[in-house]
Amino acid sequence: MGLTRRDFLMRTGQAGGFGAAFVMMQSLGLLPLPEAAAEAGRLHLVDGKGTRVVILGGGIAGLVSAYELRKAGYTCTVLEARERPGGRNWSVRDTTRVEFIDGSVQSCVFREGNYMNAGPARLPSIHTHMLGYCRELEVPLEVEVNSSRCALMQSGKLNDGIAVQERRVVNDTRGHVSELLAKCIRKGALDEDVTADDKERMLAFLMQYGDLQPDYLFKGSQRSGFKVPPGAEKQKPEPIDPLPMHALLDADLWSGMLSEEVIDWQPTMFQPIGGMDRIPYAFARHLGKTIRFGAEVKQIRQSAAGVTVSYQDRARGATHTVEADYCICCLPLTIMKKIDADFSDPVRAVIDSITYDHAYKIAWEAPRFWEKQNNIYGGLSWLQQTVNVIWYPSAKFFSENGVIIGGYSVENGTPFGKLPDMQAKLDASRHAIDLLHPGHGADLANPIYVNWGNIPFSEGSWIQGFGRAGNLDALLVADRRVYFAGDHTSHLVGWQEGAALSAIRVINQLGARVQSGTDAG
Amino acid sequence: MGLTRRDFLMRTGQAGGFGAAFVMMQSLGLLPLPEAAAEAGRLHLVDGKGTRVVILGGGIAGLVSAYELRKAGYTCTVLEARERPGGRNWSVRDTTRVEFIDGSVQSCVFREGNYMNAGPARLPSIHTHMLGYCRELEVPLEVEVNSSRCALMQSGKLNDGIAVQERRVVNDTRGHVSELLAKCIRKGALDEDVTADDKERMLAFLMQYGDLQPDYLFKGSQRSGFKVPPGAEKQKPEPIDPLPMHALLDADLWSGMLSEEVIDWQPTMFQPIGGMDRIPYAFARHLGKTIRFGAEVKQIRQSAAGVTVSYQDRARGATHTVEADYCICCLPLTIMKKIDADFSDPVRAVIDSITYDHAYKIAWEAPRFWEKQNNIYGGLSWLQQTVNVIWYPSAKFFSENGVIIGGYSVENGTPFGKLPDMQAKLDASRHAIDLLHPGHGADLANPIYVNWGNIPFSEGSWIQGFGRAGNLDALLVADRRVYFAGDHTSHLVGWQEGAALSAIRVINQLGARVQSGTDAG
Repeated sequence: MGLTRRDFLMRTGQAGGFGAAFVMMQSLGLLPLPEAAAEAGRLHLVDGKGTRVVILGGGIAGLVSAYELRKAGYTCTVLEARERPGGRNWSVRDTTRVEFIDGSVQSCVFREGNYMNAGPARLPSIHTHMLGYCRELEVPLEVEVNSSRCALMQSGKLNDGIAVQERRVVNDTRGHVSELLAKCIRKGALDEDVTADDKERMLAFLMQYGDLQPDYLFKGSQRSGFKVPPGAEKQKPEPIDPLPMHALLDADLWSGMLSEEVIDWQPTMFQPIGGMDRIPYAFARHLGKTIRFGAEVKQIRQSAAGVTVSYQDRARGATHTVEADYCICCLPLTIMKKIDADFSDPVRAVIDSITYDHAYKIAWEAPRFWEKQNNIYGGLSWLQQTVNVIWYPSAKFFSENGVIIGGYSVENGTPFGKLPDMQAKLDASRHAIDLLHPGHGADLANPIYVNWGNIPFSEGSWIQGFGRAGNLDALLVADRRVYFAGDHTSHLVGWQEGAALSAIRVINQLGARVQSGTDAG
Repeated sequence: MGLTRRDFLMRTGQAGGFGAAFVMMQSLGLLPLPEAAAEAGRLHLVDGKGTRVVILGGGIAGLVSAYELRKAGYTCTVLEARERPGGRNWSVRDTTRVEFIDGSVQSCVFREGNYMNAGPARLPSIHTHMLGYCRELEVPLEVEVNSSRCALMQSGKLNDGIAVQERRVVNDTRGHVSELLAKCIRKGALDEDVTADDKERMLAFLMQYGDLQPDYLFKGSQRSGFKVPPGAEKQKPEPIDPLPMHALLDADLWSGMLSEEVIDWQPTMFQPIGGMDRIPYAFARHLGKTIRFGAEVKQIRQSAAGVTVSYQDRARGATHTVEADYCICCLPLTIMKKIDADFSDPVRAVIDSITYDHAYKIAWEAPRFWEKQNNIYGGLSWLQQTVNVIWYPSAKFFSENGVIIGGYSVENGTPFGKLPDMQAKLDASRHAIDLLHPGHGADLANPIYVNWGNIPFSEGSWIQGFGRAGNLDALLVADRRVYFAGDHTSHLVGWQEGAALSAIRVINQLGARVQSGTDAG
């Protein structure tokens, strides 16, 4: 084509760098097109007439709050302790420093284009607000493959401890269940419950459901794979021998197997091309100087007239204050515990009562042995080990090198969390990957370990148990002039969509109050 | 960013047009990297020393044959009746003419970038030869989403005929099956078959499998969706009411529901960015003048010394002959029936005995109402209608407009095939889409209807029944100097992988023969 890649990149660079690449991708149809405001119909903001709102925390809840309020004519200030937007939405890539509270420091040395989404990494189709913001802010998305039938499952109690393909566990289980139920029906065990007609239809259904033989027995299915694969020679394909139900029960791989049916993990899922932090950076570009980075909140004081927030400029050490009419506090409860705030007793009681889970992820760079040798393109493998999940990249399929996640779970109360130090954790991660991909533990390089319990300004990943705490209602209304947002105040704990929904709740509440003029008298 | 999209596209155009876009995508990591020969280890070709091979048909089998034989030093000629490579691998896009044998002509008027893969449209992860050729020929791939839990299922016997989300059918069915089996186990119906210990473990498993209540009853699951969705207000999420098992049996949506577990339809699947025909065009670019387009094979004659193939130059009308040492015949059997060839009796018997299915697809251009209103991104919806499947595009998610497939099945022996004319078929397609997406039938424009039984030089989609015919063995060995390839000679009928595997079988057979010198004496 008379143009080398370097030539082209140089010209692209001259033509505008990342922006040019962005426009190029848009021209290739790889980008979402802008739409009117995301789910705008759900927001009922009238002109804020410069009402001042100070927003604590530049994670998704804070960014959505500022973005929507500014559109409606409010004057916003976002105080963010870190030097970047996004909070737990954090993509670690080359040169990123991962600093723990305990003082340990890792410096990421990934290849260009590689990244690890240390926090959220998936956008389900049904999280329409987050997808709407991606569309509105022109964040290009690609499919995040969350389930691959070529992915692996491993237990010491199954197949002599050798990993098997997920398709075998899924389809052999369904086969056995179908055989057992067909047997019961044919014995008459359900005669009291089903009509003779339904009985016949149930049997016909189970034959299809479990891929049973004409005698209603499960003797293996091509859905599970092949002993003799279909080729172009004479031999006919033959299904692989089924895994015995007894061994499947021993292995207890059910939670991994069923994870694909958890509603927020069902296909289709997406991820921003280049890293999840494309979303907060897109908000931040839009918000400009509305966000003050390196601003660590120290004190919150309310009066009849407004809210005063003091913060420390972490770079220069000076303390500043922001005066505002209202405050939206999007800080995690772990951090709110430590702030000098004149919250009401019920709010203080909630804050003091709640603890957070400490989720971790470990990422490695490696040549894509999982694609080349196992035909695994995205998805997760599950195993009964200290590190119990391996997550394959959905970014840059078929390229040479990629980032594989070796472990994603909580540390509190788990065997992984009890490992003595970082090295032991990295070793456990490498061991798990090597168990599924024998010999390839040695191919893993440049590990990054993120434990959210050990990350400053987060000190946890989500409310313990991954569900909204029962006593959280006090945070759903304003404490005088302070509102509370964040995924922890939603029923979608640990999801960006929950953070966005909580922000929308708060700004609707605040908007109604400003419009009503309650505070003006 | 100081650069409009038009500016950038103009500069890109100056910098090399499509080639530049290609390099750009590569630089963005969207392209596969070249590798050594795809599955080269499976090919054992020694130097062909100019052995002449005439290859009949420029579909995947013919292209793979020519590509591999040329690399090994054979002199190849591919005769292809059409003016394009690919055979049934055919992407219809703006300006494509769809001419039927019955004389009807359609002219496609899609927007730029839109296409319909009239033939194959999916590459499963396990079809390693086709993926290998994409890597080797630098055909950029993207995920083909073959299953979306937001997709719809419809039957007049379920939910008053109103379509329901696939997640409900899948998860409610599993719930009911689990409840019924748990009931039988607790009644003791399986006491002869399972130990007391396994019985307990089965019950624990079924509770998880079906998302049962503590009393082992299925009362709905959040896996199926919500009556009250999880939000940021006080209300707790509540699962949607389950569909009754009786109604699910009535609806009989099983084959659609289970299609995602057919081994070649399991995730992860891919598609070339821009259309499936990127693959044959990539082969064709490599093969150059090895392919003679517009060359309709009329006669095949063998002698002790070689093969003579006569063909008509369709553009100029003249008849030409090609002399070769060997022939690889990749034509469909429907076409072979009509060619004057001195095949052996057993080969002729196979050819005469086999009939083909007539698969069809109907494509429409439309605004993406399925994405905006139903959160459906790719996947297939199933319905109990004359047109029984709707297939959503995996290309250019979130863009304004897309190509939706309204109907993909066989015409022979089906109600669809009995419809009187093309207009009735388009009406049935529009009706099906409108039934799932009420009011949006009116949004469908620019239909294209492809019935492979009516397409010249194909006259069918695949061997009837979509499986290798029992008596096909005569085509697996050479008929003197003529070899037979094509998906119909494989156990992967209707798949490009079957065509590629058949080509590899033939060239290994041919290579061994040339190396042995059998024919030289």
